[in-house]
Amino acid sequence: MGDKTKVRIAVVAPSCTLSREAAARVEEMVRARGECELVIHPQCFLSSGHFAGADAARLAALREVMADESVDAVWFARGGYGSNRIVGAAVADLPAAARSKTYLGYSDAGFLLAAFHRAGLSVAHGPMPQDVLRDGGEAAIERALDWLLQRSDSALEGSLDGPALAFNLTVLSNFLGTDFEPDFAGRELIVEDVGEQLYRTDRSMFHVTSQANVRKVRRLRLGRVSEVIANTPDFDSDEERIVADWCARSGIAYGGRADIGHDAANKVVPFG
Amino acid sequence: MGDKTKVRIAVVAPSCTLSREAAARVEEMVRARGECELVIHPQCFLSSGHFAGADAARLAALREVMADESVDAVWFARGGYGSNRIVGAAVADLPAAARSKTYLGYSDAGFLLAAFHRAGLSVAHGPMPQDVLRDGGEAAIERALDWLLQRSDSALEGSLDGPALAFNLTVLSNFLGTDFEPDFAGRELIVEDVGEQLYRTDRSMFHVTSQANVRKVRRLRLGRVSEVIANTPDFDSDEERIVADWCARSGIAYGGRADIGHDAANKVVPFG
Repeated sequence: MGDKTKVRIAVVAPSCTLSREAAARVEEMVRARGECELVIHPQCFLSSGHFAGADAARLAALREVMADESVDAVWFARGGYGSNRIVGAAVADLPAAARSKTYLGYSDAGFLLAAFHRAGLSVAHGPMPQDVLRDGGEAAIERALDWLLQRSDSALEGSLDGPALAFNLTVLSNFLGTDFEPDFAGRELIVEDVGEQLYRTDRSMFHVTSQANVRKVRRLRLGRVSEVIANTPDFDSDEERIVADWCARSGIAYGGRADIGHDAANKVVPFG
Repeated sequence: MGDKTKVRIAVVAPSCTLSREAAARVEEMVRARGECELVIHPQCFLSSGHFAGADAARLAALREVMADESVDAVWFARGGYGSNRIVGAAVADLPAAARSKTYLGYSDAGFLLAAFHRAGLSVAHGPMPQDVLRDGGEAAIERALDWLLQRSDSALEGSLDGPALAFNLTVLSNFLGTDFEPDFAGRELIVEDVGEQLYRTDRSMFHVTSQANVRKVRRLRLGRVSEVIANTPDFDSDEERIVADWCARSGIAYGGRADIGHDAANKVVPFG
């Protein structure tokens, strides 16, 4: 089944459940473009407590599409929490077919991006299907498709000038020191964060910039820090001062702002 | 000034500001015991945004009491956030006098406990002056003093049976991979947590138990996990299942519950 001449994109949900509405809207957008086949795995709609199905179900769906030679790209449905619970098994004994496709996502999917990149797979940080529900979210979906189908330069973060890695700061902090931590040497590191108090952003920056591996980055840039939770007492700083300060303390070149974040404007950062 | 025959305890605040009420109540309790001299450093009452004074002021007070030969014990005033911002400088070029005293605290002070233990100083996880404001908090203060002044067995966590380390789980997660991470090999690791959603506790346990160093612990025990923030959707687990599960996944022996936490019952765990 499916048109073999068309690019085939599989959607799986390694973290939380994809909304039916988001799925329908993205399917309609893909139909309108007429360029590719989108296969939303039924696992995306499972629900088990916090997760899009139990660990075993999420892992099985992910491994299934990774091993499927007819799949050109694996698009993570959304973030939330939970991909770290299956990342070890997801990256073990990789089938050859897993190496001939691209993986796209961000936020909690950063655990997979990190591990897959370290394993030599082709990975990018960028919009996910659930983002269609954001204000102006169609633009994020078109951008993701522009990149997945055409590798359009216009989809890319605008100031990339060498190999780069991009992560949610809190997710990055939570895989440091594990088997899934990639090599940062000589790369640009871009971070964004969402839904944290500024003292937590400060603490995560302490953690990240205190790593010998991270101190080898070429430079660090800051995406958007959104939905900041109020701090009592007021933290008396802002996200850019926090990030620039920890860069200065740790001898990392701070490269300014980057055009990524938990929003519809989130640009694509292919890992290199 | 001060009676040289009495034990001298200095209080400094490397994180957040100590309340005047807590200070007065602890001073009154110390006077009533008549066994020791308590010197609450004026830095404890400074306030600079989130912190008990700017980094330089907190560091100067800490280094001052560490270098003071007349001080037998340094008691961290309270947690909150911020000791990580000065831990590197606090532990650099240690004066000899820093090695002849004991350091007591928990929560955010865990950054200092970890780094000081790694540097060979005598460190314990236990109640702090601000805890007097908790329900039944006097018991926590008496327990801390029992341990600081008499090394009373009754102050200790009841199931210790070998070298142990104790940390707030989130603080532990945030110093992994830094120069302040202690050697866990052969030790018991006790963790407690406060004010997190269960998905964060789960994520922190992933992070902690994925470290090669942590996997060398003799066993891991779980203190109290309090003030849990509701999760949407419900996380469908509890703290002990979460911790036992990550121990099982990572080959760490789970040793059951431990009598520490962000509460008045918090027992003392001397690091070894």
